[in-house]
Amino acid sequence: MNFSKCWLDYKPLAEYEQEWLTLAVQCEGKIVSSAVREYKLAMKEMTGKGLDVINTPAEQGVNLKLDAELVSGQDGYTISVSGEKYEITGQSESGILYGVFHFLRLIRTGHLEELPVANTPEMPLRIMNHWDNMDGSIERGYSGESFFYKDYEILWDERIEQYTRMMASIGINAIVINNVNVHEKETYLITDRYLQQVKQYSDLFNQYGISLYTSVNFAAPMELGDFDNCDPLNPDVAAWWKKTVAHVYEVIPNFGGFLVKADSEGRPGPFTYDRTHADGANMLARALAPFGGTLIWRCFVYNCGQDWRDKKTDRARAAYDNFIGLDGQFDDNVILQIKNGPMDFQVREPVSPLFGGLKKTNMILEVEIAQEYTGQQIDLCYLLPMWREILDFDTYAEGEGSTVQKIVNGSVYGQTLCGMAAVINTGNDFNWTGSDLAAANTYGYGRMTMNPSLSSDVIAREWTELTLGSEVEQEIVPMLMKSWSTYEKYTSPLGIGWMVTPHYHYGPDIDGYEYDRWGTYHRADRDGLGVDRTPAGTGYTDQYNEPWRTVYADPETCPEELLLFFHYVRYDAVLKSGKTLIQHIYDTHFEGVEEVEEMIARWESLQDKLAEDVYERVHERMERQLANAREWRDRVNTYFYRKSGAEDAQGRKIYE
Amino acid sequence: MNFSKCWLDYKPLAEYEQEWLTLAVQCEGKIVSSAVREYKLAMKEMTGKGLDVINTPAEQGVNLKLDAELVSGQDGYTISVSGEKYEITGQSESGILYGVFHFLRLIRTGHLEELPVANTPEMPLRIMNHWDNMDGSIERGYSGESFFYKDYEILWDERIEQYTRMMASIGINAIVINNVNVHEKETYLITDRYLQQVKQYSDLFNQYGISLYTSVNFAAPMELGDFDNCDPLNPDVAAWWKKTVAHVYEVIPNFGGFLVKADSEGRPGPFTYDRTHADGANMLARALAPFGGTLIWRCFVYNCGQDWRDKKTDRARAAYDNFIGLDGQFDDNVILQIKNGPMDFQVREPVSPLFGGLKKTNMILEVEIAQEYTGQQIDLCYLLPMWREILDFDTYAEGEGSTVQKIVNGSVYGQTLCGMAAVINTGNDFNWTGSDLAAANTYGYGRMTMNPSLSSDVIAREWTELTLGSEVEQEIVPMLMKSWSTYEKYTSPLGIGWMVTPHYHYGPDIDGYEYDRWGTYHRADRDGLGVDRTPAGTGYTDQYNEPWRTVYADPETCPEELLLFFHYVRYDAVLKSGKTLIQHIYDTHFEGVEEVEEMIARWESLQDKLAEDVYERVHERMERQLANAREWRDRVNTYFYRKSGAEDAQGRKIYE
Repeated sequence: MNFSKCWLDYKPLAEYEQEWLTLAVQCEGKIVSSAVREYKLAMKEMTGKGLDVINTPAEQGVNLKLDAELVSGQDGYTISVSGEKYEITGQSESGILYGVFHFLRLIRTGHLEELPVANTPEMPLRIMNHWDNMDGSIERGYSGESFFYKDYEILWDERIEQYTRMMASIGINAIVINNVNVHEKETYLITDRYLQQVKQYSDLFNQYGISLYTSVNFAAPMELGDFDNCDPLNPDVAAWWKKTVAHVYEVIPNFGGFLVKADSEGRPGPFTYDRTHADGANMLARALAPFGGTLIWRCFVYNCGQDWRDKKTDRARAAYDNFIGLDGQFDDNVILQIKNGPMDFQVREPVSPLFGGLKKTNMILEVEIAQEYTGQQIDLCYLLPMWREILDFDTYAEGEGSTVQKIVNGSVYGQTLCGMAAVINTGNDFNWTGSDLAAANTYGYGRMTMNPSLSSDVIAREWTELTLGSEVEQEIVPMLMKSWSTYEKYTSPLGIGWMVTPHYHYGPDIDGYEYDRWGTYHRADRDGLGVDRTPAGTGYTDQYNEPWRTVYADPETCPEELLLFFHYVRYDAVLKSGKTLIQHIYDTHFEGVEEVEEMIARWESLQDKLAEDVYERVHERMERQLANAREWRDRVNTYFYRKSGAEDAQGRKIYE
Repeated sequence: MNFSKCWLDYKPLAEYEQEWLTLAVQCEGKIVSSAVREYKLAMKEMTGKGLDVINTPAEQGVNLKLDAELVSGQDGYTISVSGEKYEITGQSESGILYGVFHFLRLIRTGHLEELPVANTPEMPLRIMNHWDNMDGSIERGYSGESFFYKDYEILWDERIEQYTRMMASIGINAIVINNVNVHEKETYLITDRYLQQVKQYSDLFNQYGISLYTSVNFAAPMELGDFDNCDPLNPDVAAWWKKTVAHVYEVIPNFGGFLVKADSEGRPGPFTYDRTHADGANMLARALAPFGGTLIWRCFVYNCGQDWRDKKTDRARAAYDNFIGLDGQFDDNVILQIKNGPMDFQVREPVSPLFGGLKKTNMILEVEIAQEYTGQQIDLCYLLPMWREILDFDTYAEGEGSTVQKIVNGSVYGQTLCGMAAVINTGNDFNWTGSDLAAANTYGYGRMTMNPSLSSDVIAREWTELTLGSEVEQEIVPMLMKSWSTYEKYTSPLGIGWMVTPHYHYGPDIDGYEYDRWGTYHRADRDGLGVDRTPAGTGYTDQYNEPWRTVYADPETCPEELLLFFHYVRYDAVLKSGKTLIQHIYDTHFEGVEEVEEMIARWESLQDKLAEDVYERVHERMERQLANAREWRDRVNTYFYRKSGAEDAQGRKIYE
């Protein structure tokens, strides 16, 4: 197989301690075995030496211990050192595995001085969503084809193992192996046609503390069974699911559960039968419950047949409107998976008001590592700072301090079925992620779910050191940290989003979605642009708790980066910077391109310090990013120049 | 096979003359045999009687005679009647066939009082271009799949024969059987892989006086041979073509020749080798010449990688700029095939200035029956009035009266290799043309090439009587006659074109091509829109002879329907109607929709007089047309309202 090892590429150490080569394993289990195997492999690659594995405590060595009472949370661990004795204590087998990966990370980055450490994974559920299809394609994939499937067969090779190790090393504990859009063949994943091979994946995942989930087709009873409906209140439909699920657990006792996209973008769902999403989710959840399975139900439900003439209907309102009334009606093993914003993974959105609204429902925050709207792994866009802002957003659900982070880590409502899910950005490209630098997002997502208090730049530094070496960290980290802001500058301004090429979502098309059915409008005319989402407009701001409701509804207090999301604003309105809106648009678009040029110069300065293939792959993408940024700049500026007639205050070139 | 007979659907006659049932055939040949067969079939279906075929003159009967001296042109015929004796005299076998079809038409429409008639086909070449691909798809096909090919096999069934009869009945004498975009498999059409089956087609066509042509891949020597180039001045390349062509004629002695799209939209061509189109065309023509073959070379050559920022480059200039300097350099058996306008089959374009420019080059006028930009056989758009205007356009090439018609019928320059070619609108739909009414364009195209002096409404009446019956003619003919104008009203205004959904070319997308690479811009800003093609702009108007050069360059004299094609015009400019430009845009778009509504009412009034399946098929399309027209109206009006800020003088609903 031809693939890189990403952040698990252990390089020989300049020096090492002899006691690292003794591992005292004082517990057992299949995940412990994985931890031992991982440690052994790392030592072999870093020191060239074999490992002495013993099962009694070692005064000169690394001790692995289990202590179920260690911490109150799940899968916590501590790492300590005393003289020549190291101790990695796990609250569970997974805790030991995480402790080993942490210890190895400290060795590799030369930060053993941080010991002792004590960590408990912050998010109970740390999920990867694969949008892989069984034909081998990946929806919104920018890194090659699927490494799970090809031509409707399930693959089994060393890449799967490497992938599993990578996921475990960053703390992932649940993986959904197929696209939320479940097509015909994927519907059969929960049948004997594929179950034995799914079990093979599940067994491998389990060895690394990971549960396997599948996306299911809500209409499966119609496609797999003899049903002419899939009404969730039809007892025969429910019975079919119970039987089907029982068989899944018969084959795969540790099966995690289902992820469902229903009544969304053409997918079937309970609305067809005038049932609620609670009806739909609970019916499936009850089939899973006897086996401890979990049902994850996506809230990405909106009318994708909107009329652009209609200025009252607002897609931003849809998730809240569809789900808030169901709060408290979902079974205990149901989780709602809520996208970070009310639209769809734009470069800038407000946080979904469902996080401030739902109180009696398990919630997962969904983000997208795959750079669908953020440069498609051609343009550099390190997403941790965005996710950081989202987690830090105070919903005021239970008074000040009710941040998204505290909701999804379970502390606000005492939930245990909560956490984060992310659409992953991997594929079968040699480097897994198209751009080598895009792996920082993959890595960073896992690290953040394990420990959201880690700042984005600390994670960037960690990833850079592990992947590209500490020599380039000083240049790479600021490059990553600035990239989201740069991308935002040259694309759509101030939270309005959607000025992208329809369907592909790469490159500018200012009116591309403006007269379409997707509910994604900028409403630009000759005087200004933006969507009025105040009570005078669509009323979306009312979905927030105070103070946001008031703050967002007033253009004077609305955070400026979201100004056009919430308000129609005249081109000649003056922003906090003292610039007019139109001048702000011109300026940021010129700046964005300049920043890409600076970024490229920075990368080029590192040529001698980087592996040639990595340098070239990334450099080639950066050239494409520059072309893209220039096209964005010129199209956005020309579009608004033609509409506004406003000259650039600095007299730069704006095409007529 | 499941297909309709279109205009060859012979209905029983209420009454007939006994002498029609005697056919005196005083000549012979395979086309004469076809004429006899056609006449016999028609009589059988119209009278239910068998035909008495004799080979001596009949005083009571229909006499078929050959007279090579009958007329000076090609394939002329006369039909006369004297007492009970009819005489159809052909200047050739094809002339007899055309005469028989004409005679049958007069019988069917009850217009025998028009006898005697004498006709000579006006256009020497009356060509159909099929954009059929061998996988069975049809580029810009809106009537099902190909009836020539399926899954890379050549089909052979009764549909082919019906098709051939239909073509002959309207005077077609040349058919290009594959798409001008020649893909990999189609490259093999001129090889033994397919030649025997192509010959089968050719033999059938020949029986009806039709020559078979193929589109060829200019890079065939590289794909079929061992060449690393296809440089037309490479003697080995030329030798390869000579050998290949010789083999084609060995198998198909009556093979017509080749059609070539080179250096266009990604197709290979002589430009790659710094050769001219004359180099390319002549090389191929010289391979065909020994066998009497003809080489048709398309002039649709332009830069499809244009930068929207560039306001000097003008796609409209491209064909003229690329070919005018080559006038006189083409071999005698080369014909340039010139699209009617300088862009690409828009609903309104000026006539290509090549028709006024080229003087020493054989020319064919290319039109598109397939309604790519004119409603895709969903929207009704009878194209004869457009073609009529094009043919009547006076190029002033050799002084006043040098109309396009006279250029392509050979009378201006005494050419014999000239005429018209059309991209056909057929497919394997039951009714051949998607909408039953779209067949009026297929039929009308042939009739017009035979006799361009026939007016569009006469042809419409003929087609209606033959296809739908004379009872509905009073309603259908005006419906057809108005349809182009209606379509133009609700789509892009005053000649600017291109406001369509990219790639698909159906439905509105005002900015869809505006920032793209295709050279198709409207340049709308907050003050006005249109492209300055005067000497102050792109200079395109200079490609015309006087007086057009001056007339087009001045917005005061420029024909208003082309105003925005030639000029950037302010929204508040006053048109000849006294309305401002913006008001004109609003008004025509409201009118267009109203006219569609009236058209539907008219169609509905005919329900009892039409076959149910025809009525329903067309009605369903008209409903889609109405939705399309409304979408066009609203998007165009809103787009220009947002840009101009101008209120509708009549206060109608324009969405903001």
